[in-house]
Amino acid sequence: MSQTTYHMSPDEFREYGHQVVNWVADYYKNLEQLPVLSQVRPGDIRRGLPAGAPFEGEKFQTILQDLDRIILPGITHWQSPNFFAYFPANASGPAILGDLVSSALGVQGMLWATSPACTELETHVLDWLVPMLGLPSKFLSSEAGGGVIQDTASSSSLCAMLAARERATNYASNRQGGHGRLIAYTSNQAHSSLEKAAMVCGIGADNLRLVDVDEHFAMRPDALSRQLEDDRGQGLQPFFVSATVGTTSSNALDPLPEIGRICAANDLWFHVDAAMSGTAALCPEFRYIQEGIELADSYTFNPHKWMFTNFDCNCFYVADRKSLIDTLSILPEYLRNQASESGSVIDYRDWHIPLGRRFRSLKLWFVIRYYGIEGLQFHVRRHVELAQQFAQWVQQDNRFEMAAPAPLNLVCFRHRGDDGSNEELMKRLNRSGDLYLTHTRLDGRFTLRFCVGQTNTEQRHVERAWQKIQQVAAEL
Amino acid sequence: MSQTTYHMSPDEFREYGHQVVNWVADYYKNLEQLPVLSQVRPGDIRRGLPAGAPFEGEKFQTILQDLDRIILPGITHWQSPNFFAYFPANASGPAILGDLVSSALGVQGMLWATSPACTELETHVLDWLVPMLGLPSKFLSSEAGGGVIQDTASSSSLCAMLAARERATNYASNRQGGHGRLIAYTSNQAHSSLEKAAMVCGIGADNLRLVDVDEHFAMRPDALSRQLEDDRGQGLQPFFVSATVGTTSSNALDPLPEIGRICAANDLWFHVDAAMSGTAALCPEFRYIQEGIELADSYTFNPHKWMFTNFDCNCFYVADRKSLIDTLSILPEYLRNQASESGSVIDYRDWHIPLGRRFRSLKLWFVIRYYGIEGLQFHVRRHVELAQQFAQWVQQDNRFEMAAPAPLNLVCFRHRGDDGSNEELMKRLNRSGDLYLTHTRLDGRFTLRFCVGQTNTEQRHVERAWQKIQQVAAEL
Repeated sequence: MSQTTYHMSPDEFREYGHQVVNWVADYYKNLEQLPVLSQVRPGDIRRGLPAGAPFEGEKFQTILQDLDRIILPGITHWQSPNFFAYFPANASGPAILGDLVSSALGVQGMLWATSPACTELETHVLDWLVPMLGLPSKFLSSEAGGGVIQDTASSSSLCAMLAARERATNYASNRQGGHGRLIAYTSNQAHSSLEKAAMVCGIGADNLRLVDVDEHFAMRPDALSRQLEDDRGQGLQPFFVSATVGTTSSNALDPLPEIGRICAANDLWFHVDAAMSGTAALCPEFRYIQEGIELADSYTFNPHKWMFTNFDCNCFYVADRKSLIDTLSILPEYLRNQASESGSVIDYRDWHIPLGRRFRSLKLWFVIRYYGIEGLQFHVRRHVELAQQFAQWVQQDNRFEMAAPAPLNLVCFRHRGDDGSNEELMKRLNRSGDLYLTHTRLDGRFTLRFCVGQTNTEQRHVERAWQKIQQVAAEL
Repeated sequence: MSQTTYHMSPDEFREYGHQVVNWVADYYKNLEQLPVLSQVRPGDIRRGLPAGAPFEGEKFQTILQDLDRIILPGITHWQSPNFFAYFPANASGPAILGDLVSSALGVQGMLWATSPACTELETHVLDWLVPMLGLPSKFLSSEAGGGVIQDTASSSSLCAMLAARERATNYASNRQGGHGRLIAYTSNQAHSSLEKAAMVCGIGADNLRLVDVDEHFAMRPDALSRQLEDDRGQGLQPFFVSATVGTTSSNALDPLPEIGRICAANDLWFHVDAAMSGTAALCPEFRYIQEGIELADSYTFNPHKWMFTNFDCNCFYVADRKSLIDTLSILPEYLRNQASESGSVIDYRDWHIPLGRRFRSLKLWFVIRYYGIEGLQFHVRRHVELAQQFAQWVQQDNRFEMAAPAPLNLVCFRHRGDDGSNEELMKRLNRSGDLYLTHTRLDGRFTLRFCVGQTNTEQRHVERAWQKIQQVAAEL
């Protein structure tokens, strides 16, 4: 700390920055050895912290020591190669360093004018992703659509629902509020963020229909059609359907072509949520999962899940950017500027809820360039291969059974015992620290989820996990 | 790039990380010399980028070179000490390094269970801030309230409006949607995010009343009272008032005690938005700005504006956390866990719209510890002093006039010429690259805004800015 200014000078930053980089490199070197799931109890971390903030500044060294001493025991290591829980939340070297540059530049990208490179790189990289993923060209900024980086798929799905709401009410509900007759649809396996979006945007969760699924947990188009008719018959106004490419629970794939045709025939906004699984489309052989995407009005997936780009980095595409902008645009005097008024630039402030925004495309740019399409494809293929291998082991062991199809990198399985033994199995595995997996319920039954997608997961981690699962199962 | 895995190994990370840290240190050393406002035209940055993503991965060195070659010319330097535009968006060494650790850990803090330290440090540091800022103790997590880090004040204000909406409808609108009779209130000088929140949450912008202000651009409590009566008389249901401590336009201070009393008497949710100016309350002599805050139901301010903590870091407090949680809670099976069900932990997923969340309290913890309360106070005092000095110079020069009171670090002023000469003055100043300031309209007139709050702004930068303003004014 400089005595006179309290600031960290550039030269001090250089010194401490090297220390933190070394800390990170060492963390990643040791990561595999750490127990994945933190074992602390509620309040343990807070008990290690002083009750009040320090009046005098402290040495950087002390803070860094406390990171190891106080914080690390309370960390569940999402970057461990033995992490198979939830969905992955990939970090990677190039993403971490791209984000470091973003922190240092500290620009606001709310308007093109507030830092043109922040807007243009984002538009450009999101355009790159369209052919990379085999998405329809209508999502390109050079056509009527475009992409934007948001924090999470929750926020993107909310924005999709808002744009749909406005289109359906001829942009009246933005001004007058809701009228309580708009009805949205998704499957009963869809992510909870859809329910939250319906609550937030004034549609109401009761007006979100959770459509039935088939035996593979995919939305049934016939059930959707019937529900639409019912609602129309009652004088209600259907306006929005969200389909999922890879549900959180079991990685189920909703049939986009059929759902998309129903949406087109009924003039409904068709949103597609491919939060984790969208990344698989980097590989042509997996693009079948998004067949029918050309019918979508909006699409979202998360490079921060399975594309090696640190949180937060959700990509949201719309086919008609005007409908999104007209929904979310505000223009106070203090943000007026020549570039915006010329109409020749994108102002991302009008593409989401927050006003301020960070330079998030830098990390995505770093990742795509460092890995190349080839490198990204390599890892996606590898993860799918490892998950498929795991699924085979499950099927070959008669103490276990598959609980759902495993089209990609998520395997839902069960011990053939009851719910209690599955829960106990999960608890013992997670308590061991050797791996971390989570659960869901399918057909009402407690089900284990094993998701392969962590940046550094290799064959040996999956093998060891399966050995551990077999071993603990034997002790049940 | 490792040949076999495409990943950046820990040792490669160490090497490239040191390069990026050096790049950052050098950037800050040279920053003062760079033209503040980027001079590129729309499309300039994109023209420097290849049309498609690379198939093969590239060398890290190449990417870093392109950062200088392609990106930097399109950067408006928000971290330049000559940046006086909008509001500041402070970065600082400890914040950048805290955020680097957060990127590296890459944990998800959606639930206590997904990484306990992420939740507990956040609760703890937000508790620290309550006495640091002289906020009422009801905002402490040890009482019925609590704080959470969100991305922006826009999102926090939306959450406040949502919680208010649910309280006013007895939690029915979450389920049934809006009924179109709820009315919200703020001043006609409030931030545009309030209008956006009314649009998003289904209240409708027409149902947000923009209450008149006094000659200092502060909300008039008598006008608020009258409007409330009018609306009640028409069978409408007032439910929410947002007051501002330091408006974006002119830093006007709404009278919280009077507004708070009106809210209490009418059972309205009272939200206080102190986005930039809230930080001033670190210094006891400036706490008068939030007199009456003890009446508020919710409060928000941005350490990412004026408290040396990189974006995004907005702090949002509620007096009754149950009302917020009941508004935003969702509980799918795949997120169920023992800790949550015990009720003894905070799950921040239920405190905002996104589900996923990054470990943002680390950077705030680093900043508070590194500067200490003393260091933070030092800089806030310094910035206010410099702005007051600037205001004096304006008043002493008869070519200029003040356009609004300048209670803290924002000076609104005008050249005594017409709107055109003020606009021309601003354009020439910004084009010079020597400083960057922006405008607003007050009483319908074009007004220059000079905001002192950038991390590294010192006396000499403000002096030079004033000299440049005088010089360009002389050339008009």
